Amino acid sequence: MQSRGKIVLAYSGGLDTTYCALWLKEQGWEVHTVTVDTGGFDAAELARIEAAARHADVAGHSVIDARRPLFDRFLRYLIYGNVLRGASYPLCVSAERACQAEAVARHALAIGADALAHGSTGAGNDQIRFDVAFQVLAPGLAVITPIRDQGLSREQEVAYLARHGVVIPPATGRYSVNAGLWGTTVGGAETLDGWSELPESAFPSGPPAAASDESRELCITFEQGIPVMLDGESLEPVPLIERLNDLAAHFGIGRGVHLGDTILGIKGRVGFEAGAAQLLITGHRELEKLLLSGRQLFWKAQLGDLYGSLIHEGQAFDPLVGNLEAFLEASQKTVSGEVRLRLYPRALSVLGVRSPHSLMDSRAAAYGEANHLWDGADARGFARVFAVGQRLSGQVHREGRNDSAPAAATVGGGS
Amino acid sequence: MQSRGKIVLAYSGGLDTTYCALWLKEQGWEVHTVTVDTGGFDAAELARIEAAARHADVAGHSVIDARRPLFDRFLRYLIYGNVLRGASYPLCVSAERACQAEAVARHALAIGADALAHGSTGAGNDQIRFDVAFQVLAPGLAVITPIRDQGLSREQEVAYLARHGVVIPPATGRYSVNAGLWGTTVGGAETLDGWSELPESAFPSGPPAAASDESRELCITFEQGIPVMLDGESLEPVPLIERLNDLAAHFGIGRGVHLGDTILGIKGRVGFEAGAAQLLITGHRELEKLLLSGRQLFWKAQLGDLYGSLIHEGQAFDPLVGNLEAFLEASQKTVSGEVRLRLYPRALSVLGVRSPHSLMDSRAAAYGEANHLWDGADARGFARVFAVGQRLSGQVHREGRNDSAPAAATVGGGS
Amino acid sequence: MQSRGKIVLAYSGGLDTTYCALWLKEQGWEVHTVTVDTGGFDAAELARIEAAARHADVAGHSVIDARRPLFDRFLRYLIYGNVLRGASYPLCVSAERACQAEAVARHALAIGADALAHGSTGAGNDQIRFDVAFQVLAPGLAVITPIRDQGLSREQEVAYLARHGVVIPPATGRYSVNAGLWGTTVGGAETLDGWSELPESAFPSGPPAAASDESRELCITFEQGIPVMLDGESLEPVPLIERLNDLAAHFGIGRGVHLGDTILGIKGRVGFEAGAAQLLITGHRELEKLLLSGRQLFWKAQLGDLYGSLIHEGQAFDPLVGNLEAFLEASQKTVSGEVRLRLYPRALSVLGVRSPHSLMDSRAAAYGEANHLWDGADARGFARVFAVGQRLSGQVHREGRNDSAPAAATVGGGS
Amino acid sequence: MQSRGKIVLAYSGGLDTTYCALWLKEQGWEVHTVTVDTGGFDAAELARIEAAARHADVAGHSVIDARRPLFDRFLRYLIYGNVLRGASYPLCVSAERACQAEAVARHALAIGADALAHGSTGAGNDQIRFDVAFQVLAPGLAVITPIRDQGLSREQEVAYLARHGVVIPPATGRYSVNAGLWGTTVGGAETLDGWSELPESAFPSGPPAAASDESRELCITFEQGIPVMLDGESLEPVPLIERLNDLAAHFGIGRGVHLGDTILGIKGRVGFEAGAAQLLITGHRELEKLLLSGRQLFWKAQLGDLYGSLIHEGQAFDPLVGNLEAFLEASQKTVSGEVRLRLYPRALSVLGVRSPHSLMDSRAAAYGEANHLWDGADARGFARVFAVGQRLSGQVHREGRNDSAPAAATVGGGS
Repeated sequence: MQSRGKIVLAYSGGLDTTYCALWLKEQGWEVHTVTVDTGGFDAAELARIEAAARHADVAGHSVIDARRPLFDRFLRYLIYGNVLRGASYPLCVSAERACQAEAVARHALAIGADALAHGSTGAGNDQIRFDVAFQVLAPGLAVITPIRDQGLSREQEVAYLARHGVVIPPATGRYSVNAGLWGTTVGGAETLDGWSELPESAFPSGPPAAASDESRELCITFEQGIPVMLDGESLEPVPLIERLNDLAAHFGIGRGVHLGDTILGIKGRVGFEAGAAQLLITGHRELEKLLLSGRQLFWKAQLGDLYGSLIHEGQAFDPLVGNLEAFLEASQKTVSGEVRLRLYPRALSVLGVRSPHSLMDSRAAAYGEANHLWDGADARGFARVFAVGQRLSGQVHREGRNDSAPAAATVGGGS
Repeated sequence: MQSRGKIVLAYSGGLDTTYCALWLKEQGWEVHTVTVDTGGFDAAELARIEAAARHADVAGHSVIDARRPLFDRFLRYLIYGNVLRGASYPLCVSAERACQAEAVARHALAIGADALAHGSTGAGNDQIRFDVAFQVLAPGLAVITPIRDQGLSREQEVAYLARHGVVIPPATGRYSVNAGLWGTTVGGAETLDGWSELPESAFPSGPPAAASDESRELCITFEQGIPVMLDGESLEPVPLIERLNDLAAHFGIGRGVHLGDTILGIKGRVGFEAGAAQLLITGHRELEKLLLSGRQLFWKAQLGDLYGSLIHEGQAFDPLVGNLEAFLEASQKTVSGEVRLRLYPRALSVLGVRSPHSLMDSRAAAYGEANHLWDGADARGFARVFAVGQRLSGQVHREGRNDSAPAAATVGGGS
Repeated sequence: MQSRGKIVLAYSGGLDTTYCALWLKEQGWEVHTVTVDTGGFDAAELARIEAAARHADVAGHSVIDARRPLFDRFLRYLIYGNVLRGASYPLCVSAERACQAEAVARHALAIGADALAHGSTGAGNDQIRFDVAFQVLAPGLAVITPIRDQGLSREQEVAYLARHGVVIPPATGRYSVNAGLWGTTVGGAETLDGWSELPESAFPSGPPAAASDESRELCITFEQGIPVMLDGESLEPVPLIERLNDLAAHFGIGRGVHLGDTILGIKGRVGFEAGAAQLLITGHRELEKLLLSGRQLFWKAQLGDLYGSLIHEGQAFDPLVGNLEAFLEASQKTVSGEVRLRLYPRALSVLGVRSPHSLMDSRAAAYGEANHLWDGADARGFARVFAVGQRLSGQVHREGRNDSAPAAATVGGGS
Repeated sequence: MQSRGKIVLAYSGGLDTTYCALWLKEQGWEVHTVTVDTGGFDAAELARIEAAARHADVAGHSVIDARRPLFDRFLRYLIYGNVLRGASYPLCVSAERACQAEAVARHALAIGADALAHGSTGAGNDQIRFDVAFQVLAPGLAVITPIRDQGLSREQEVAYLARHGVVIPPATGRYSVNAGLWGTTVGGAETLDGWSELPESAFPSGPPAAASDESRELCITFEQGIPVMLDGESLEPVPLIERLNDLAAHFGIGRGVHLGDTILGIKGRVGFEAGAAQLLITGHRELEKLLLSGRQLFWKAQLGDLYGSLIHEGQAFDPLVGNLEAFLEASQKTVSGEVRLRLYPRALSVLGVRSPHSLMDSRAAAYGEANHLWDGADARGFARVFAVGQRLSGQVHREGRNDSAPAAATVGGGS
């Protein structure tokens, strides 16, 4: 058969992507598999994936360690913005998928590929994130998506692989797990509806290992919004996050079940375990309360949410994202200091924050008591002026409703 | 001495407001004290306050039970908006103070008073909330603030009272506590800086009473955003909140230390215990994830934050607040359903939500599988179109990066 | 041939939709055409359209006068929100298309149709608006789109019609025009790029008929945000808008060329003439400056923009839209009063506004001079407190950059 | 008399500030006057001001040309953000006042002054802007405000000056005018209410000088958001703005009457003439429509508004402002290109825009027809998926309308 050219396939070593590798080869493509490690794989797993690729006789297999790029490109902004979707879910999968898609697309351009492929189905968010990244970063390359196009059942795929002499060990356990540096997600029968309880045993680390009366204090140091130390020990971001994930897992901190909106307009539900994200965002947010102005805090919350939504919805390449990154980065100029937390089983408590840039400390240092900044007469004057707009509006609105029974009547009963 | 007229004093029975009562009387005012109960008082405490007022020989003393008005006027919107300042602090004090100030002002108008008084100092938020409410609701009445104006020490006040034969029992304990329906705040030596740990013993309910391995499931039912049942038992909002506060206190849930911005521009720190708020907002927010569109969730989060900021900052009478209430209320039309939670010592876990208006269930019921809403080809088409804007931007930005020749050169042609 | 059932076709009497009528009939559908009048048709045009439908031998033809529903359902909110996309373009086409799609879908449900059809191509926004409205309002009905699916050339359509004995008079003139109550759009060779000038002669009403030194004063009265009188004469919204369109056309007011984003991600450019929208929004916005608080004005601007974006992008059925309508409607409670404008050729000038709810007048009436609201000492106190946050931040930021050369050096040169 | 130390006075040469100079000297201050030129003065005027200062026998007088700093520090961000308050008023006075206050404060620090003074009254915005800037930039210096503190009448000031042998020529004309680089404001009897017409003769440049049938095309070139050429001629920002102001004045473009909110909570009204601002913002905004994504345009509009509000309200030193500047600056990376406008008497029309970074042109260049980006089937798929959320919501909301049985009934199951 004549070659159709080179194709680069985002490869996880699982059933779907191994099917893709074999099927694409059968169609005449020279298949290059790429596995992008955003934190979900240990060495044994990477070896297993490579063996699977070799078994499928691909023309080339590459592993890209994208953990640090994941941090630099996405995670630090998620920290700057304190991004927890729905006030609970760190955007682990979306950031990882965007990062993986970028790495695969760049690899394809680097080796002069003619096409790109991914193994996502037509049901979820991942297909959109891969499609978008591939089209934006490699606009001249075709995008082939066998799983989405063919809609095969799991059994059909297994049978096809068997005919080609490839056996993928069946996924074990009742839950499908997606592990990564910024969090691990868990899906199962219970997450198919909104009501069922996902048991603690469903999480990879199981019920908290900590004794029920165990607790531990932890100090995290940030430098311009970046976590740089744990309990006084300097660490690079990736090992720092890995260590926090282990620590949190011991206490069962950072878990939850997220019910959210997919890019495709339906609701979905997923369990997650993201201890480092929980600890870092909780600590960073508290530090910002000490270091940013009230107006910064208000608007940064909105724009952090917006940044998170864009990443979640596969809009990581809209130039607005870069503009928001500039805003977020500028906001971190003085976000350097320490936060101390106490960890309990399933619970996390903020103990305190401090920083040389404190807006709380600096007042005392520079101006002494509050009454060096203002006195009672100033405060009275402030309140009088502060009330002016509301007085004027109040008068108009009161007149507007002066025929209705006064609200005071209800209150009046007093005694 | 000739009477200056009638004055209504917001009265708590403590040192500051009793000083005010006596001093105002001495100035020739006919003093009417009003105690507004927003949840912080039991019957014994109210009796003690009344006795103190009688002892100061005021012309009249009234007690206004404003717990239900507090809910109707503020708390329900704080629930609709899932308002937790800095992602943790329910706006208990600000809502209560605004509600108290309103009730006092309306009482003054009802009895034909000539002036209003409050006992706040010039240091904090409360003076602003009282001043603003008094000026807006009773613009013709003078506002007298002896404590702010005179800047007396505690000892001077005690001595003054003693000269008038009045003894106020000294506050006991190391912590100053402000109790209310929506939460109790705690201040002490540790909250004067940002770093010190506020011990669990500082909270009125002390360390969690629950055994370290105790847990309990709880089901809350909402009707158009209002909590109406606990574990299937119908309750009015006030007793429902009171019961949740007790339950949460048992587990030590809903506590924290808030570092935030005052209206006057400085940072302040305060401990808080607000179990009902924590349980209700956590549950309500989860229910909304099932029932509101993604766009509603995004924008409601921003506008809920805004509503909270306005209440916090003493802007409760800006007509924008009413407009936001209309938005929030409209958003609750379908927010009816149940949430189940599990309570652990210091920790809270969402188990699940359900509702007849579910956007998750309804899909299956009406359209069967996801592939009744779209198929793989639709998804591919969606992704292609969805990527168009980013492709176009991406091309320009990529070119901008690759080509160092300045853009102006190309533009130059001019007229 | 066996009937496939009843289909309702959104019908304009032009080439594309007449092709659809004939082709659908040929496929076995019982075709019912519906023409929804949102202001673009006079009686003669409606008669011509009906004749075309009859000539195509459809099973039924209906005309729906949706001008007032268009106002009630969309235009009034566009006025409340002062919605001008890109600060210039009133959302005439998007509101009309959404309204038409709704009317057609409701008609289909009313007559028990099995399917819906529209004649939009795959290039623009209208297909999305029709598809979405049809799927949302009539989820059980198939949506057939022959023009989009078949991608025929204009010549092929003409030939097909000729074979069926139907002749549609070719569009005359160099410009394609879409007329409606809220505005008329104009497309032509010049709008295919961003640079070419669309000549005044391209607009249906041509160069301004007014003499170059002609001007005219105009007074518009609003009642809770709704325009109700012109120069003191009471008018219903539809005739009021029609009269303003005529008046503005005489002066050449309300025209422009809009360069904007389509739902599909590309940029498009179109000329428009929307005099009534320009006059009403300019007047309404000015009246609001007199009647709403500064905070209302700020946030209403953002949310009005958001409302406009949702309507433009085919999201008219997201429940967020209803929530925003509640906000906007609440904001209009006191927006009653008069605005006077002066019209010049191509130009419009606001002369003044007045209202019984004025926040400007009421001050004088109630409190006399500004110094009844505050005095110099109050203002000084206000400024001191107002500066506190910036002082604290300023100190930290100054210290942060205290090694860099001071900015004062540049300024210092003075003399 | 013993010297109180050095004081720096923001000096305009008018009655109020000359009174301040003399009175401060009389109090024992060593008075240094500073006149900051933000565009309102010609050489003769500056000489006249210096003479007045010398006549008042001040210890030193400085003139600071702050036109370029005004542009670099404020105006360029007002252009980046297309900031027109209330969609019409460029923030000329607030930007100029903030810039002047900064320059005066820095001068005071440079010469080692002990105090700062300004001549604003207690009625308006300027006092706040001066007070805030002085307190933030020179926190150790006292701020003296004789006019605000003493509340003298004009006659009393004139008499005081006469006693000291100083005569300030009375302001001529019916209108008070504040001229500056970014605009000139006009106040008079007509602006004291909201209804009266401010005649064209009230504006410094009078009725348009252009013939009623005159028009002129103008091409402005922007480089990363900064205007750099007029009709192909390179100009620095200050002369470019000055030339545009002259050109616009000839046509009477950029005038209006602004009704807005002061920092102190009341409404105020003022005429303005700001031709360059009008031309530059209109042109810049149109160029951005060609060059920014739809999402950028939406959010930049909100954040530009916010930036403008902060500058207007005397919050120029909140660190949020710097964060917004970072956002705005990042957004201008590709905003390079040309816009052409046509000027008519009182009217301005955008003819077209072009740029090498065009998101409109690049499409054709790179992908050919729209159908290279997607085809009809893609569009159909897009619309299907795009509608999913609204379909689900629509179903629930429709059922909610049809079924009057309360939702709670279905929910009832409780625990």
